[in-house]
Amino acid sequence: MLEKLKEQVFKANLELPKKGLVLFTWGNVSGIDREKNLIVIKPSGVDYETMKVDDMVVVDLDGNVVEGDLNPSSDTPTHIELYKKFPSIGGIVHTHSTNATIWAQSGRDIPAYGTTNADYFYGSIPCTRKMTKEEITGEYEKETGTVIIETFEKRNLNPQYIPGVLVNSHGPFTWGKNPDEAVYNSVVLEEVAKMAMFTEMVNKDIKPMQQELLDKHFLRKHGANAYYGQKKK
Amino acid sequence: MLEKLKEQVFKANLELPKKGLVLFTWGNVSGIDREKNLIVIKPSGVDYETMKVDDMVVVDLDGNVVEGDLNPSSDTPTHIELYKKFPSIGGIVHTHSTNATIWAQSGRDIPAYGTTNADYFYGSIPCTRKMTKEEITGEYEKETGTVIIETFEKRNLNPQYIPGVLVNSHGPFTWGKNPDEAVYNSVVLEEVAKMAMFTEMVNKDIKPMQQELLDKHFLRKHGANAYYGQKKK
Amino acid sequence: MLEKLKEQVFKANLELPKKGLVLFTWGNVSGIDREKNLIVIKPSGVDYETMKVDDMVVVDLDGNVVEGDLNPSSDTPTHIELYKKFPSIGGIVHTHSTNATIWAQSGRDIPAYGTTNADYFYGSIPCTRKMTKEEITGEYEKETGTVIIETFEKRNLNPQYIPGVLVNSHGPFTWGKNPDEAVYNSVVLEEVAKMAMFTEMVNKDIKPMQQELLDKHFLRKHGANAYYGQKKK
Amino acid sequence: MLEKLKEQVFKANLELPKKGLVLFTWGNVSGIDREKNLIVIKPSGVDYETMKVDDMVVVDLDGNVVEGDLNPSSDTPTHIELYKKFPSIGGIVHTHSTNATIWAQSGRDIPAYGTTNADYFYGSIPCTRKMTKEEITGEYEKETGTVIIETFEKRNLNPQYIPGVLVNSHGPFTWGKNPDEAVYNSVVLEEVAKMAMFTEMVNKDIKPMQQELLDKHFLRKHGANAYYGQKKK
Repeated sequence: MLEKLKEQVFKANLELPKKGLVLFTWGNVSGIDREKNLIVIKPSGVDYETMKVDDMVVVDLDGNVVEGDLNPSSDTPTHIELYKKFPSIGGIVHTHSTNATIWAQSGRDIPAYGTTNADYFYGSIPCTRKMTKEEITGEYEKETGTVIIETFEKRNLNPQYIPGVLVNSHGPFTWGKNPDEAVYNSVVLEEVAKMAMFTEMVNKDIKPMQQELLDKHFLRKHGANAYYGQKKK
Repeated sequence: MLEKLKEQVFKANLELPKKGLVLFTWGNVSGIDREKNLIVIKPSGVDYETMKVDDMVVVDLDGNVVEGDLNPSSDTPTHIELYKKFPSIGGIVHTHSTNATIWAQSGRDIPAYGTTNADYFYGSIPCTRKMTKEEITGEYEKETGTVIIETFEKRNLNPQYIPGVLVNSHGPFTWGKNPDEAVYNSVVLEEVAKMAMFTEMVNKDIKPMQQELLDKHFLRKHGANAYYGQKKK
Repeated sequence: MLEKLKEQVFKANLELPKKGLVLFTWGNVSGIDREKNLIVIKPSGVDYETMKVDDMVVVDLDGNVVEGDLNPSSDTPTHIELYKKFPSIGGIVHTHSTNATIWAQSGRDIPAYGTTNADYFYGSIPCTRKMTKEEITGEYEKETGTVIIETFEKRNLNPQYIPGVLVNSHGPFTWGKNPDEAVYNSVVLEEVAKMAMFTEMVNKDIKPMQQELLDKHFLRKHGANAYYGQKKK
Repeated sequence: MLEKLKEQVFKANLELPKKGLVLFTWGNVSGIDREKNLIVIKPSGVDYETMKVDDMVVVDLDGNVVEGDLNPSSDTPTHIELYKKFPSIGGIVHTHSTNATIWAQSGRDIPAYGTTNADYFYGSIPCTRKMTKEEITGEYEKETGTVIIETFEKRNLNPQYIPGVLVNSHGPFTWGKNPDEAVYNSVVLEEVAKMAMFTEMVNKDIKPMQQELLDKHFLRKHGANAYYGQKKK
């Protein structure tokens, strides 16, 4: 079942340690089949070194395991909430990558300070509010998804334009049209987080970049008028 | 004698340079056989590259060498004190890993700023007081153990919940139920130390994380109600 | 056509990820044949891992593609402006290397704080002014070249003595007498940027280095009286 | 001539890029034969990748090339001054390693903040005064040695106890009883420099470590009462 998606999700998970985004088992990637409404996700707490493609777990949008012998990632309910709310996304990544996590722990949005940010995130990268005691002691992993969605709704953000978020006191989630693109955006977020942190050290009075430069860089890579890269034939 | 434990301790020592936790010979791992009350520990000042499993030294709880041709690590008396006081631990690691040592040198506890900390350390990671002149000029390595124990007793800390400590002006010790877990906790501590340092740079007014989030993350991985990972069959 | 230069440009592009200067496709190197007035440049958005020497694109100084099946780098008009204005340069590199980009985002020149800077850059490394809305929404990539040239002209800088620049809110460009030297200067700039950033952290009152030391180090490596290295026979 | 020393110096030079202490050709190691009063040193500006053992240059204490086809390192006169003044040293290293250079550029001594420092440097690591215009425009490389020696004499420092120095606005020199030990001390200095820098960030009011702890750690590894490591048989 879903052999191709399993392969994609498996390989995308292996990219996380290769790109230096996770230590041990601290991360997970999922992908969704939108026709069947089934999600493929990494099993919980399994070593990347011994993990096999068949260890991937298939769950439905109610969180029921449809296929697989292992427990799915404990973060599965977060992934489910995001897939249900954001129909445009096909892959999700969660990591504790160092610099993105530093911003998450600091409880601050990452301001858009330059074109590296603008090439992939159309504005600052939001940090959620802290979760309430009720949310934490209740269905915590599901509520993590809820607070992400609330962040995007309250600020009127488009998840296709801002493909990631920082969960307060926790770490980043990113997404994309498939698992690979979600991993790509995790790498971008980690780099942008590092640059932003030290930009503030080098210039204490730094302000976010000009709107017109943000527009230019995002829109030359994304949307109808993009002209970066090669035309797909 | 203790061939299996020697193998464990040997391999755990080799993990230290692989994980980027030590330069040269600046670290040591030990393990204990609780039935025989014998400790296996790395020899002092021996290169990781040429070290063999049979170079591991066996000492008793009085510090006598029971087996082995080489001197045991000069930190052996510290390990012994910890094994004697904390019956739940089966492995100990000492390193000068960069970021944990920075906090040790700064003489500060590492505040718990996020879930990466909470997943493995149930609260802030304590830093000992400075040692007295008498302690330093006396049985220094033994007294290093004593001051660690004092830190845990005065603050009423559980070494199973806080599996590591910073020795003031010196560096970290971590432990676990076996040598592997002690090394694992060294890696966690190093990463948490790095994140905490820059979290304070990004947000000068940062406060420790919410107690309920700390509870949630520690307890979903540890103790009777843990639900992270795969059930051991 | 231009097979030797294509080979040089291709190899110089591959150096960027090897030296840790670029993630993914975030960089480009070009070289110019001054007799034919033709530029060889990396194609836009092509993976370094699958890129072949024949993917290099040949363009003329009006930006017309003379040879090659792929689109040239979207930054080609910037390269062209620099080649037209600075006749001494034979290769150009653009990256988003972490530390140089941090300074670019901070909108500050990198002050010359030590001999590592002085060995290759004869003074501080300039950061351009922000581009205007008209420049950004107009011929953006060409105007990026224009604002670099303006920076050098207004400050009366010699591009042979200062082989690089920071484009405000964006990232670095470097150059040299050939593509290899341009890459070399990118590595230098990245290292100098890192050192300068932390030099200001270690000493808040730091002033730029003495002029005579700057003179000494630059001139013992460059120009008629250089005595570093081996005499070319 | 001096084949064994050439081999040592050659290998010690290759250690510099392996340990991450140098980019390109930015470093040099030398060794001295105290009976013959001849120094073996790296040639100037030669790539580590293509350098051969026979490229090592032999010079006498007046700087005359006694053997070798290549120019010796441009820093040779600095090495010579140190060998002449400090009879206990047998090897010298110069690098622009990142963190040590940051302190050199900042013009500050590195305070001894912890046992990692104390294990190898018996106190703070000194930074020279700035060189005068006369020194810089005169016999610069020789005067670099002179200002190092002045630093040790004025402060009454023992080069066996403090095996390295920061040259103001420039970078570090380290030494040891042979080339290998000099490289070892370069690695230590780089790590200690990094730790000290961030120790000051984590604790703005940090004071140097206790004298008794400094004594304890240095003297348990060095001198007549050392007890670290294995007894040489």
